[in-house]
Amino acid sequence: MTAAVTRSEHDLLGDRDIPADAYWGVHTLRATENFPITGTPISSYPHLIEALAAVKEAAALVNQELGLLEPKKAAAIVETCREIRDGKLHEQFVVDVIQGGAGTSTNMNANEVIANRALELLGHAKGQYEYLHPNEDVNLGQSTNDVYPTAVKIATVFAVRGLLKAMSVLQDAFARKAIEFRDVLKMGRTQLQDAVPMTLGQEFSAYAVMIDEDRSRLAEAVELIHEINLGATAIGTGLNAPVGYAESARRHLSEITGLQLVTAANLVEATQDCGAFVQMSGVLKRIAVKLSKSCNDLRLLSSGPRAGLGEINLPPVQAGSSIMPGKVNPVIPEVVNQVAFEVIGNDVAITMAAEAGQLQLNAFEPIILHSLSESITHLRAACLTLAERCVDGITANTEALRASVENSIGLVTALNPHIGYTAATDIAKEALVSGRGVAELVLEKGLLPAETLADLLRPEVVAGRSRALT
Amino acid sequence: MTAAVTRSEHDLLGDRDIPADAYWGVHTLRATENFPITGTPISSYPHLIEALAAVKEAAALVNQELGLLEPKKAAAIVETCREIRDGKLHEQFVVDVIQGGAGTSTNMNANEVIANRALELLGHAKGQYEYLHPNEDVNLGQSTNDVYPTAVKIATVFAVRGLLKAMSVLQDAFARKAIEFRDVLKMGRTQLQDAVPMTLGQEFSAYAVMIDEDRSRLAEAVELIHEINLGATAIGTGLNAPVGYAESARRHLSEITGLQLVTAANLVEATQDCGAFVQMSGVLKRIAVKLSKSCNDLRLLSSGPRAGLGEINLPPVQAGSSIMPGKVNPVIPEVVNQVAFEVIGNDVAITMAAEAGQLQLNAFEPIILHSLSESITHLRAACLTLAERCVDGITANTEALRASVENSIGLVTALNPHIGYTAATDIAKEALVSGRGVAELVLEKGLLPAETLADLLRPEVVAGRSRALT
Amino acid sequence: MTAAVTRSEHDLLGDRDIPADAYWGVHTLRATENFPITGTPISSYPHLIEALAAVKEAAALVNQELGLLEPKKAAAIVETCREIRDGKLHEQFVVDVIQGGAGTSTNMNANEVIANRALELLGHAKGQYEYLHPNEDVNLGQSTNDVYPTAVKIATVFAVRGLLKAMSVLQDAFARKAIEFRDVLKMGRTQLQDAVPMTLGQEFSAYAVMIDEDRSRLAEAVELIHEINLGATAIGTGLNAPVGYAESARRHLSEITGLQLVTAANLVEATQDCGAFVQMSGVLKRIAVKLSKSCNDLRLLSSGPRAGLGEINLPPVQAGSSIMPGKVNPVIPEVVNQVAFEVIGNDVAITMAAEAGQLQLNAFEPIILHSLSESITHLRAACLTLAERCVDGITANTEALRASVENSIGLVTALNPHIGYTAATDIAKEALVSGRGVAELVLEKGLLPAETLADLLRPEVVAGRSRALT
Amino acid sequence: MTAAVTRSEHDLLGDRDIPADAYWGVHTLRATENFPITGTPISSYPHLIEALAAVKEAAALVNQELGLLEPKKAAAIVETCREIRDGKLHEQFVVDVIQGGAGTSTNMNANEVIANRALELLGHAKGQYEYLHPNEDVNLGQSTNDVYPTAVKIATVFAVRGLLKAMSVLQDAFARKAIEFRDVLKMGRTQLQDAVPMTLGQEFSAYAVMIDEDRSRLAEAVELIHEINLGATAIGTGLNAPVGYAESARRHLSEITGLQLVTAANLVEATQDCGAFVQMSGVLKRIAVKLSKSCNDLRLLSSGPRAGLGEINLPPVQAGSSIMPGKVNPVIPEVVNQVAFEVIGNDVAITMAAEAGQLQLNAFEPIILHSLSESITHLRAACLTLAERCVDGITANTEALRASVENSIGLVTALNPHIGYTAATDIAKEALVSGRGVAELVLEKGLLPAETLADLLRPEVVAGRSRALT
Repeated sequence: MTAAVTRSEHDLLGDRDIPADAYWGVHTLRATENFPITGTPISSYPHLIEALAAVKEAAALVNQELGLLEPKKAAAIVETCREIRDGKLHEQFVVDVIQGGAGTSTNMNANEVIANRALELLGHAKGQYEYLHPNEDVNLGQSTNDVYPTAVKIATVFAVRGLLKAMSVLQDAFARKAIEFRDVLKMGRTQLQDAVPMTLGQEFSAYAVMIDEDRSRLAEAVELIHEINLGATAIGTGLNAPVGYAESARRHLSEITGLQLVTAANLVEATQDCGAFVQMSGVLKRIAVKLSKSCNDLRLLSSGPRAGLGEINLPPVQAGSSIMPGKVNPVIPEVVNQVAFEVIGNDVAITMAAEAGQLQLNAFEPIILHSLSESITHLRAACLTLAERCVDGITANTEALRASVENSIGLVTALNPHIGYTAATDIAKEALVSGRGVAELVLEKGLLPAETLADLLRPEVVAGRSRALT
Repeated sequence: MTAAVTRSEHDLLGDRDIPADAYWGVHTLRATENFPITGTPISSYPHLIEALAAVKEAAALVNQELGLLEPKKAAAIVETCREIRDGKLHEQFVVDVIQGGAGTSTNMNANEVIANRALELLGHAKGQYEYLHPNEDVNLGQSTNDVYPTAVKIATVFAVRGLLKAMSVLQDAFARKAIEFRDVLKMGRTQLQDAVPMTLGQEFSAYAVMIDEDRSRLAEAVELIHEINLGATAIGTGLNAPVGYAESARRHLSEITGLQLVTAANLVEATQDCGAFVQMSGVLKRIAVKLSKSCNDLRLLSSGPRAGLGEINLPPVQAGSSIMPGKVNPVIPEVVNQVAFEVIGNDVAITMAAEAGQLQLNAFEPIILHSLSESITHLRAACLTLAERCVDGITANTEALRASVENSIGLVTALNPHIGYTAATDIAKEALVSGRGVAELVLEKGLLPAETLADLLRPEVVAGRSRALT
Repeated sequence: MTAAVTRSEHDLLGDRDIPADAYWGVHTLRATENFPITGTPISSYPHLIEALAAVKEAAALVNQELGLLEPKKAAAIVETCREIRDGKLHEQFVVDVIQGGAGTSTNMNANEVIANRALELLGHAKGQYEYLHPNEDVNLGQSTNDVYPTAVKIATVFAVRGLLKAMSVLQDAFARKAIEFRDVLKMGRTQLQDAVPMTLGQEFSAYAVMIDEDRSRLAEAVELIHEINLGATAIGTGLNAPVGYAESARRHLSEITGLQLVTAANLVEATQDCGAFVQMSGVLKRIAVKLSKSCNDLRLLSSGPRAGLGEINLPPVQAGSSIMPGKVNPVIPEVVNQVAFEVIGNDVAITMAAEAGQLQLNAFEPIILHSLSESITHLRAACLTLAERCVDGITANTEALRASVENSIGLVTALNPHIGYTAATDIAKEALVSGRGVAELVLEKGLLPAETLADLLRPEVVAGRSRALT
Repeated sequence: MTAAVTRSEHDLLGDRDIPADAYWGVHTLRATENFPITGTPISSYPHLIEALAAVKEAAALVNQELGLLEPKKAAAIVETCREIRDGKLHEQFVVDVIQGGAGTSTNMNANEVIANRALELLGHAKGQYEYLHPNEDVNLGQSTNDVYPTAVKIATVFAVRGLLKAMSVLQDAFARKAIEFRDVLKMGRTQLQDAVPMTLGQEFSAYAVMIDEDRSRLAEAVELIHEINLGATAIGTGLNAPVGYAESARRHLSEITGLQLVTAANLVEATQDCGAFVQMSGVLKRIAVKLSKSCNDLRLLSSGPRAGLGEINLPPVQAGSSIMPGKVNPVIPEVVNQVAFEVIGNDVAITMAAEAGQLQLNAFEPIILHSLSESITHLRAACLTLAERCVDGITANTEALRASVENSIGLVTALNPHIGYTAATDIAKEALVSGRGVAELVLEKGLLPAETLADLLRPEVVAGRSRALT
């Protein structure tokens, strides 16, 4: 006698056979058939699975407190949720990440997996929902419309923490280089034209400061993500959620997750609004823009080796060409640029999804989850890779940089207040035409005494009082 | 004997004739020739012109204090700047808003206009720059690279104030309707399907709350715009700006504008970074997304008059069709939707411009100014128009709305906790197939006593404890 | 004695241990370490792997013909490429899809896998590159800069074929409904307001025609993708590629793939240009826009069941709510909307990547490959799902639709040419205010004889002569 | 006795005073009040005004032919339309370009202006609509829903012609430089790293070819714009349009405009579909991407003068800095970049507007008109400016370019097939470390005889057989 290979489950549409060892049930089965879109199951989003389990655990605890759920059932649900939060059963979360139904299939996948595992813990077979039901017990007092956005927010907070840390790593890498290069004089450029002198340290310091600012913005944006609508049920009116449910659920969920969650003041608004996600994505876009700009600079500054700017050297991390021997390419900044483009594209997708919400709900949160999650995790990987495989190993071509300052026309700007704009312009023009140096011409024409000139042209003076390195 | 029609001016490229009555000079002339792109002169951005004048006034005051500018010259410059801030001479700002050169042409247009007007005040003829020079006096201690971004930021702050006020007007309009409609029962919908009951007041309250939140976000974003880089000069090293210049200029500029401006801690970073503009545009996009969503809802709720949802009536503001008599269309929400699409598109343009910055400068701030300014002023107009020509006049079809609740299948959800999900599902299915009412079927099947049912189905109860209206 | 677990390989950067059973080598190893970004290896893009194998096979054949590659080596390479095109060894393509280096790592992954498998076929051990070398033999006469874009184009053509077929399936589904619903009268709407009558068949016919047009555009865009730069080598000058190489390689590759490939007239231009990808993405965006619009309509027309338009019924494919029993949601159109948003976002990413190309190469083609591939395959899945799980099962509420026409105000438009715009406007207004029917009022006022009116109001007449159904 | 200052007009909403000298009427008045958004009247879009007049003229001719409009009235309308097409009365087109109502206000503005001018021609006073009515006569047989899209398409075709011409001018400018620079050797670069030699002529040839290809794509896209829906009336059913109307109107309109217009096969589809606009915008985006890429290159190649690549010199067109004397910036490429960013942003706005269409109509065509028109005219200006103020004056630093080739490591690639990848890699590495030349090392190590090497390194050979210059 062999064990049954399938069990039968029933829903609105009829009966279906479910693999006997599957913790998911008929809802999940139909969802996998309905959404064969990306091939990426929600199990690829572990933060989301953990967040779903946390929400379900919080709900079970509240329901028990309120006397709505038998302690035995509650205990089994809670134990299951903890298993999931410990990394178990993730492979049972099989619905496609991009799905219709506003996340219902994700929620039902969780309800079914939790119910069947809890049934096992209670000594029943999977599918014996008369003892513990995915909807009536696991989902008790909840709706997809409050569970799913709440879980997405918690997952986002978890993911953003990783990004914030990776940004710190990158910031530190830039800051170390800023100190290392503090005495390396170089020409600053505006509009790709030689401008006035600065230090390479100032250049790297600017990158560090950019990331520091972006971290502040990201930390602000993630605060907004702590506002949840758990307890809203279907549309925010809290229908079927007992008195005290929202507050109690929030408290349990805060404890479980360690996050300072806040229940939205207006649950009807909170249930239909995706503003916090749009804001978050906007900040991720800002980060992407500046990472990309910094990488563009790194690629430009390291261009060469002989027919480029050749100011800095990126560490070689792989052979650069399948055909050009010895070529080493800026592959790490290049991959970061591409992540940035992806994040900027994702922002448009998120924007459109948010705009498309109608009346009391936004049905398009699954693509928001997918795009936000992709943006955050890829940015995190990009920051770490950039720090560890590129910035840390950057070296400067110090002598060439100093020579370029001494040879530059831009030095004339420093003389501007001393000899006047018109005279300065004439010197610059002559230097350009003749190929001669600015200093030489200034002395020749007697525009300044030699000592004054020498002092004014000391690169350390020229580099200024900027509060760049702190 | 007649007055000369032109005067001659000289620059790097040679001599040019300038109309004798023009306050602008040779730089401006060349810029108008070089950038015949949009046909929109910067005079169409009065906030920018005023901000430029404020910056120049502050600089003149500092330069005088530092003994770098004769009091007589400083006084003439200051007087001119005040005239400009009072609305005079704006028509002299003729360069195209989209321009190469990182704003140099805008800065030089200002320098030339101010110099020539100041010359007049000093009793000289226009063009007699030996007495007061656009670069050596008006632009003293400055660079386009600190003047232009500073002016753009101040102009943005001025413009955002107008938007914040308009958003308040719209929020109040929605909030008044929320109160007016607080007792109007209706079906809430998720995914466009009948869900559970709510009040029309809750629906409008959600719109008010959305705007309120967006105002908070906008107020935060505009704070970041108060950070300026005046004193950075060319690349942030402060070259040619005397000690104390940045701080003193910031103080004067704060006084002149009434804004609490802050000098960036790292001027090299601040001079190349457009992060605050990207953030601002991201928040404008967020506002656009939610305005558009609200307008989509208004158009949907007012669809009909007979073959639509017909829940509310928008006030007719013009005949709707050139061919269909009596048709009244939701033209005001429609125009707001279009502004939203424009703002979302502008955000992409701003993003690309910010990403394209290189090394010590972003040369593409003119398109950022243009796009930001357009987004802000069009959103402002959209909010006011929506409030005054649409929301204020909305009426509800109260009876039809109540009937739709009583006839709805969604009521079954309220019974879910009392009769269980499975039974509730069966009732819903039967109601759907038979066309009969949910209540009727519940009683017929003896699933609930009549009194319990009546109480549960009281719409006021169903509408819930939501903290929607405060 | 046991087999070695690793073998050692050497490159520019030194020695590394490679798992003994890996067909990939040191280049691939470093690439996996350098690009830990998405976690998605290129093996997830089987069209790309097959296209790479086809390119390598064509190159080996040419190299043999030109006497540059020993027949024995060529035969081993060709056999390996055929194995790969038959689906073998795909799991050896392990580098991350988003990578720096313009695709070098993808090309080297292919070179190494092919070399090692060919070595086996020749009776050598993996890593014995002295007998057959990844660069000197497999990559002979090629460069990443011509191999990678060529492979991406071939992969794109393969993928687009699948999309074109799926679009046909969807078009047919809409067309069948257009015929099924040809006699179902309904109110047409403009701006969501009742306009004039039409048939439901016309409505579905429009969806079919949209897809038909989009298929034509897609077929045009894919033609452009047949232009390749194989033979360009590094920058398009054909350095190291022998005379006749490009033409011969194109011929072999056309035979192998069955595609009518064309060599670009200007290989320098072709090597740096991503225009064909931008165009392709633009057309995919167009498809997405119209699919999304059609799905928005389907969701709107099926809104209800009682408080919506309720014109059509989408087939239920899963229970709609975890809390609202009996609710069936438009989950299939919703998932299609989300795919559309993703495609529109991807277009922005592709646009930015294309714009970021510099000088003789675009280093960002990997993200273009990734985004294009995602857009094409997700659109394909969306079309099939929409056809099979939604459109095929749509039913119409025929009686309610006819009633809405008879009751509509829009009928007055049909009378416009007979009673004049002004009178028609008055009738419409009165009907609206009184709630009475248009026909009734026209007769009462003696504006038309009853027979004329009856004839004019026959819905079949009103529905017009449109060439909608063909 | 003085002339009346106003006349009174009546519509659905009541009576309003109209300035006596205004050709527009009450509809237009209300529209100006309803849409105070951009401040840009449709008169700023002369192609649109001319296209509207052409449509109205065609309609009047058909209506007369069909006996629906008295010849006298028709003649007056036709004469008025010709006046407008000759540039008269444009200032009477006062409604804001971004408007709700799907273009109804634009159509009514045209109807009213034409009616009132025609009334004058017939000897009546403005406003005496009993003699000739804006709706019943000028708009006879039409609807905004066919008039407006048709006019937008014709206006777009007119505008695109200007862009195509400007692109030719730019292509020619690049092509002339390609010939001028055909013997200028330089290093080609991939990923900003020195790659292999090429000629500067090849580089400029690539820019010319890119534009040539884009012109082909644009010409294809504008073909699609020739398909109109005139005769569709409200929703495509042709209600109220007499038999033969659509075909006859198309014929007249083709004659008037000189365009080969085609009536859409399915008018219901054509009336709701914006696909051709999305396609057009996608192609404009493609053009923008490649223009921007070319300008990025020009700015990079001309970077310097001393601390940059310094390969080419852009002609100075204005002083570059308000503070750095003698600085000349790449202002023309910079302004072109910004136009490109704007066009890419506009594409997103157009995409969203197209996606937002509902059921039988897209109400958001006004923003599509606005954005498309802006993209086309700004791109046109950008192409002309780039050609005439930049490309035409570009010069090359021939000697420095040749020296960079001779000194380059990239030359080693040319030796790859002769000495093998491994040896070549070693030489490259040694050259890099030692700072010595590749040729020198190859000879020293006896890897090649001196004659072979000399021949292989002749730059003319290295530059290849590319079919770049044709």
